[in-house]
Amino acid sequence: MTATNTQPPSPRTRIHHVARRGHYDRATLHAIVDAAYVCHLAFADEHGVHCIPTACWREGDHLYIHGSNGRRMLKLAATGAQVCVTITHLDGLVLARSAFHHSMNYRSAVIYGCFEAVEGPAKAAALDAFVERIAPGRSHEVRPGDTSELAATTVLRIPLDEAAAKIRTGGPADDEADMDRPVWAGVLPMALQPLAPLTDAAPTGTPDYVRAWASTASASATDAEAVSP
Amino acid sequence: MTATNTQPPSPRTRIHHVARRGHYDRATLHAIVDAAYVCHLAFADEHGVHCIPTACWREGDHLYIHGSNGRRMLKLAATGAQVCVTITHLDGLVLARSAFHHSMNYRSAVIYGCFEAVEGPAKAAALDAFVERIAPGRSHEVRPGDTSELAATTVLRIPLDEAAAKIRTGGPADDEADMDRPVWAGVLPMALQPLAPLTDAAPTGTPDYVRAWASTASASATDAEAVSP
Repeated sequence: MTATNTQPPSPRTRIHHVARRGHYDRATLHAIVDAAYVCHLAFADEHGVHCIPTACWREGDHLYIHGSNGRRMLKLAATGAQVCVTITHLDGLVLARSAFHHSMNYRSAVIYGCFEAVEGPAKAAALDAFVERIAPGRSHEVRPGDTSELAATTVLRIPLDEAAAKIRTGGPADDEADMDRPVWAGVLPMALQPLAPLTDAAPTGTPDYVRAWASTASASATDAEAVSP
Repeated sequence: MTATNTQPPSPRTRIHHVARRGHYDRATLHAIVDAAYVCHLAFADEHGVHCIPTACWREGDHLYIHGSNGRRMLKLAATGAQVCVTITHLDGLVLARSAFHHSMNYRSAVIYGCFEAVEGPAKAAALDAFVERIAPGRSHEVRPGDTSELAATTVLRIPLDEAAAKIRTGGPADDEADMDRPVWAGVLPMALQPLAPLTDAAPTGTPDYVRAWASTASASATDAEAVSP
């Protein structure tokens, strides 16, 4: 399946509420996943339903998560239980002329299915890929995981087969009768943006990925600041 | 219960993994909730577990959500089903000297319980409170919801009684043996930040809440730009 193929919605992924905002193509789904550092993982156990945030990354048609073996969430997900993984980017507050039509702009992805464990050489490779996604080139700079660190870490992946995206963009959609109401209308946009890097140590200078972060940082980003404990 | 009281963790809210990052006091919980526009709501039905993003706000010791009556999530939550509501703020990528100790800084809140419907005058008041949370003063400027709009909207609230917060701050926590490794170490911080307002209409000028948004916006925020459809 190519990156642009559309997958038909399943009974769980078909979007009913404002159906026109639903997207089922891989390119849209991948773009939303790739813009995320964190997903929310919902699962059920004998105590009920849980919703836990965790780091994530994509390789091909899978979303990956990882963590310490002891984490309840990973232990349960590794059993192959049905889960739901959701990623949400909030893009803005939509201020309409009537209270009723206020809305938000967002991009979200909802993935259903089961995780499978990633083991052996693929596990180390997946963790390297995560470091590279955070900071290109860095997996060759840091001390790699040793045998006990890798053994203490669980890596899981879930296919992006049963998934849907939902997106709202644009300004308010007011009723015609409200268009002349004397009130400010529009969008208050927002984005998760880089701030100035906090340096703990830079023995060999500042790598490209930190420079790139600093160059797009919103705050005083001309120089990396010292990390405050 | 005052806003600073500590509530004992329940079997579901007690944080086991890196327990020192857990917080059970109201002030910490409220601060995380109040910084959020969106939460993730996990619930189960006959199709399995779901995790859906939705707008949220706090009043007192309750978290509120709302939406069109037809939304599956709200219909199920309104039945009093057990749910889990999670809010996550990602604050930075923590780059350690070893791959294993890479981490993220974050503030999260996890709330367990059941929603209850908010009806009658309390429903209209709760929706006004939401508009005020987004834009102080705005509930008196927009056209208020009429009878049919209010009837078409579900408002639910869940008590913040069974809830916990988890927070990571600070720089990398490397092994002593790795401290001399020649690699950049520190934090790449990030934040959900305002961008320049996009104006659809400003018949009576720019209200204070839009000016305030613009004044803290990261991009060319000196003037509100026209909204692009």
